[in-house]
Amino acid sequence: MRSALHDFLAPNSIAIVGASADPTKRGYKAMVGLLNDGYEGAIYPINPKADEIMGVKAYASLADLPAAADMALICTPAKTLPALLKQCGENGVKGAIILASGFAEVDAAGAALEQQVLEAAQQADVRIVGPNTSGIFNLHKKVNLLALDNVKPGDIGIISQSGNMLLSLALEAQYNGHIGFSTYAGPGNQTDVDFADYLQYLGEEENTRVATFYVEGFKDGRAFLDVARQTSKQKPVVVYKSGSTEAGQKAASSHTGALAGSYQMTVDLLRQVGVNVVENSDEILPVAEGLGLLQQAAGKRVAVLADGGGQATIASDRISEAGLELAELSETTRNALANILFPQASLANPVDVAGSTDAHPALLADCMAILAADANVDMVFLVGMFGGYSIRFAEELKEEELACADAIIELSKRTSKPLIIDSLYAHIKPTPLQRLREAGLPVYASIEHAVKIMAALGERGAYIQSSQQAENNAPLVVNEDCSASFRKAHAEGRDLFEFEAKSLLRSYGVDVPLEMIVRSESELAGVIKAFGDTPLAMKVVSKDILHKSDAGGVKLNISGEAALNVARDEILASCQQYKADAEIEGVLVTPMARKGIEVIIGMSRDPIFGPVLMFGLGGIFVEILKDVAFRAIPLSRHDARSMIDQIKARKILEGVRGEAAVDKEALVDLLMKVSAIVDAHPDIAELDLNPVIAYDDGYAVVDARVIVDQETQK
Amino acid sequence: MRSALHDFLAPNSIAIVGASADPTKRGYKAMVGLLNDGYEGAIYPINPKADEIMGVKAYASLADLPAAADMALICTPAKTLPALLKQCGENGVKGAIILASGFAEVDAAGAALEQQVLEAAQQADVRIVGPNTSGIFNLHKKVNLLALDNVKPGDIGIISQSGNMLLSLALEAQYNGHIGFSTYAGPGNQTDVDFADYLQYLGEEENTRVATFYVEGFKDGRAFLDVARQTSKQKPVVVYKSGSTEAGQKAASSHTGALAGSYQMTVDLLRQVGVNVVENSDEILPVAEGLGLLQQAAGKRVAVLADGGGQATIASDRISEAGLELAELSETTRNALANILFPQASLANPVDVAGSTDAHPALLADCMAILAADANVDMVFLVGMFGGYSIRFAEELKEEELACADAIIELSKRTSKPLIIDSLYAHIKPTPLQRLREAGLPVYASIEHAVKIMAALGERGAYIQSSQQAENNAPLVVNEDCSASFRKAHAEGRDLFEFEAKSLLRSYGVDVPLEMIVRSESELAGVIKAFGDTPLAMKVVSKDILHKSDAGGVKLNISGEAALNVARDEILASCQQYKADAEIEGVLVTPMARKGIEVIIGMSRDPIFGPVLMFGLGGIFVEILKDVAFRAIPLSRHDARSMIDQIKARKILEGVRGEAAVDKEALVDLLMKVSAIVDAHPDIAELDLNPVIAYDDGYAVVDARVIVDQETQK
Repeated sequence: MRSALHDFLAPNSIAIVGASADPTKRGYKAMVGLLNDGYEGAIYPINPKADEIMGVKAYASLADLPAAADMALICTPAKTLPALLKQCGENGVKGAIILASGFAEVDAAGAALEQQVLEAAQQADVRIVGPNTSGIFNLHKKVNLLALDNVKPGDIGIISQSGNMLLSLALEAQYNGHIGFSTYAGPGNQTDVDFADYLQYLGEEENTRVATFYVEGFKDGRAFLDVARQTSKQKPVVVYKSGSTEAGQKAASSHTGALAGSYQMTVDLLRQVGVNVVENSDEILPVAEGLGLLQQAAGKRVAVLADGGGQATIASDRISEAGLELAELSETTRNALANILFPQASLANPVDVAGSTDAHPALLADCMAILAADANVDMVFLVGMFGGYSIRFAEELKEEELACADAIIELSKRTSKPLIIDSLYAHIKPTPLQRLREAGLPVYASIEHAVKIMAALGERGAYIQSSQQAENNAPLVVNEDCSASFRKAHAEGRDLFEFEAKSLLRSYGVDVPLEMIVRSESELAGVIKAFGDTPLAMKVVSKDILHKSDAGGVKLNISGEAALNVARDEILASCQQYKADAEIEGVLVTPMARKGIEVIIGMSRDPIFGPVLMFGLGGIFVEILKDVAFRAIPLSRHDARSMIDQIKARKILEGVRGEAAVDKEALVDLLMKVSAIVDAHPDIAELDLNPVIAYDDGYAVVDARVIVDQETQK
Repeated sequence: MRSALHDFLAPNSIAIVGASADPTKRGYKAMVGLLNDGYEGAIYPINPKADEIMGVKAYASLADLPAAADMALICTPAKTLPALLKQCGENGVKGAIILASGFAEVDAAGAALEQQVLEAAQQADVRIVGPNTSGIFNLHKKVNLLALDNVKPGDIGIISQSGNMLLSLALEAQYNGHIGFSTYAGPGNQTDVDFADYLQYLGEEENTRVATFYVEGFKDGRAFLDVARQTSKQKPVVVYKSGSTEAGQKAASSHTGALAGSYQMTVDLLRQVGVNVVENSDEILPVAEGLGLLQQAAGKRVAVLADGGGQATIASDRISEAGLELAELSETTRNALANILFPQASLANPVDVAGSTDAHPALLADCMAILAADANVDMVFLVGMFGGYSIRFAEELKEEELACADAIIELSKRTSKPLIIDSLYAHIKPTPLQRLREAGLPVYASIEHAVKIMAALGERGAYIQSSQQAENNAPLVVNEDCSASFRKAHAEGRDLFEFEAKSLLRSYGVDVPLEMIVRSESELAGVIKAFGDTPLAMKVVSKDILHKSDAGGVKLNISGEAALNVARDEILASCQQYKADAEIEGVLVTPMARKGIEVIIGMSRDPIFGPVLMFGLGGIFVEILKDVAFRAIPLSRHDARSMIDQIKARKILEGVRGEAAVDKEALVDLLMKVSAIVDAHPDIAELDLNPVIAYDDGYAVVDARVIVDQETQK
């Protein structure tokens, strides 16, 4: 369904409630913005004390308008809102932009008022931007309610929870000289319209080529993921998420009252659905620009063309660090380069022309064309002095540089590969570089930024490819026995017993080693019969004992019936001592697991993002090094694979000290199964498989814990 | 001793060998540079075919000059060099700048010629810059041999192995508008004058406030460390080292033939001696500028003053990530801020003025003064719209903004703390920001860069403090028995046996558990007597068996004489089978070590940096995660402590899962002892203590290996 936001974010008529000729008022600024930019729709200033404002006929109230306004900008204080929204509804307004603050971000009374506003809006069938928004603009419609100078219409849609961040990007674009914006909105408190709604709108909005977000906190993160999964296939989605540290989260919460959540989890989930996450604020505009204006990259292999060894070296370092690759150039490519460059030129990637272009800068375009034609190359990176040859070497080279710029522009239209250009002279803005910019080719002034853009292009290319071949889980047929376990647990107000959790997993095909519950001494003989003389592990089964080891409820490496007996007695005694009134079901006996590599799989329901799976290596890797990966459930096989590949300690899974690699596909299967099980059983509040032992031929789930959501009802 | 480079890098007279009026020649460019910049010394063009060049009297050869030239710029080809250097010497030239390439960077013949050049220079007592240098400048002396436009004299000395990197920095400075340079030199092949020499020169050179280096490869890294250790106490030393990745190292080696070495080791060693290492090329100039122009910081506690929540949040994130701290503001400070700001302002750090300054930007300077006066604050960071209030809000604010700039300038003179300023308007260059720049206060356009500068200030502050209280090792009195071990090993052409290595360590007070060599079965009884019934470990002793485990030469957890006997028989049999002709000395028996945390200490002699110590946690931490720290020997106690603190897994040493922290000071002692032992015994080529088991009360060196340098002679 098409976004309802089109009805008022591209309005044909605008009412300004609280319009004013007083320059200190927001209702003044909006009038100025609309008049200065030449807004072509109807402007209706609403002000009971004025007949006209800045030459435009004013009205006493929304009820007096000659025709309905698509949008109402409301500049009056918080308490006026409920009544105003009712009026909006009665008079055909589709969306209200509410500037007032003094709502949930302040105190409980504010929160109550905010709830009243939301209800009034819903009854009136009016959508709300804000409250507590910095406003909106739609430059292609000449709707510049912020009266920002020097922003021009262009490709970048921007939603920012900080008005100053918009200002910062606008100033950067002004300096940069060739970037324009489509729509801006400040989501404010997101009482009604939230980040997901804006994303859907920008995804559909035809003037927007890239949707860009500065986010302090998502409200409904799951909805954003769902929209992003679709939108990112059509156009780039760029997100800067603040709160990467505790200090930043604290600052954000005192700014927008945003709930932060785990930063790393947020980043993992956004990347899972194809969002390009930007980690530094000074990379937001360059990355958005690059993704919006450049061709899409099919992969991560970069050809570097440099006219100086220093830049070639720096570019190589940054490219490797960013997870990109230096393309292996074909022999044809090398021969073609050798034909036009000096013998001392470096023809291995990075290509260093070694002076060949000092007197012939146009050769650079020829080299770029040769590199772009190589099937091993996904993107071409020109770095060095281009644009400044006539400044550095000889005035006469200007013409040739301009011709070279034209040739690069032509090439960019012909090739399907992105051409990324970085110049020492970018800040100086010589005409050859300006020509590139005017043709829509960005020119960067920092190798580091240029490489971030290539990384974003490579990431996006990889996502598009993987999303085309995504294999998703078929939903599980729910096992009736499992549902019964949950009903029983609900009834008894407890979580699943370990044996129930394991049986749940087993019933959906997860490999869980055999185990037996022993409820009385007489059953021990059966254990020996079942497991033979392999060493065994024994654990207490009791809903009242959560930390079994602490209670002395675990014994390992037990051999023979006599030892089993002793172990059972000791466990029972120890647990009774630990918690006198503990109801003890019995003990669980299972063969000791073979040695392998311990991994952990965990699931929890995040308040912002819903069910999320975590994967990591056992022990210190999760606890100390926080080396884990997150994905939103449900996972595709690609998601499962990528989360294993993402952890830093993956080399341990690939086999160290001559050990065999673990069976990665078996772990992928396990992750997919857990995802499907969680999907099928909403009663699962948390699930922990810790440890899972990974082998070169499969895995064993050695311990499983399922926390039951006592709120859900079957 | 004062650097010899002063004699010719600040020359009173310059000969240009190969001076030319042909604009395509380097000898032309140098003439232009000197004449345009108004060089005040004598210029002697040397060209046998001309009477004058560009109006300056020319000479046929150096022998014809009316007076000695301090410096000769030599623009003629490689083969002319040996003869020319002889002439230089005969005619009083103190230093020659050799542009020609075609030496060691090309082939063996070139390397031979380079050796000839070096010998000629040494005989003639002439120092050499290059060969294969891009040249030099000394702008305070108006010596601009590169004829770079638009560079101005200033505080930054720059030595760059890439001419284009200099060009890049010069263009950045030109755009930036207020940064100038003192001396530049391209070290080229470093045949004679190397990075260490340039550093000494810049350290002494009074116009230079910060010594900046772009390094592809050090030749004598140890010499650089030695000079840097002294210089960095006087003025900041900034190094960008390329080759952080294999791809970058390959590119650098094809550019300057530079030997790369381990990047991480290089960075650790440079930081050890107080160098500020910059990791991104676009941070070189901002960091050099910040360190050169701003006050020195006493610590890492930052007060953030923002006029927008977004920037406050981003700054908080970056500050935490960079290892800086948000200062805890005192109550006095909060009260003083509360007195001048709106009630809704955030007074916790980051301070967000929340609109208080929109109509009164001058309040920003007052807030900065309050923050700078707080004893808990080491630096003050102003971030946001300053400079643009009159653009954003009202033209009339311009005067107040200028007054605010003046107040900030005044404050910067009064306070001992650095004031770091970042503005959304930096690119636009409004007058209040230009006024700050003219007064020598940098203004940054990127929060990310500004934080890198604060991190550099904090790092430098910490170094200065630690270097004042450095406790160094007294040199060891060499133990004669140990020297005898080395003589014996030399004579037998082998490394130290494990028991010799341990005895070496023990004799210098290192804690190595007791152990006994058993050469015959009859000695086993003595073992039991000595160690009682504690479980024992047994290892083969043989100079012919390096990998004892592979040879079946190690048995653990042996209890009782019978088991000892069996173990010994099995070890001997297995080792003989492994290597039939192995000479077996016996077996080493030692009690099994208590459980603790395994760490590794290693020493090797790096070809560039000399003896280097490595510290890391055992197992996968070193092997897979490469989580290690390096320091050059000899270490101070501060070095030893900081290398333990540096590793990412340090939390494991601090005690996890309720375990006690390890005895860090004991590990520090051990590192100090190893450093002293290596210093005392140049025969040690490599040393490995792997593992050392760290306890909450000391440590045990469980295995030790000493590789003997067969080249050294006692």
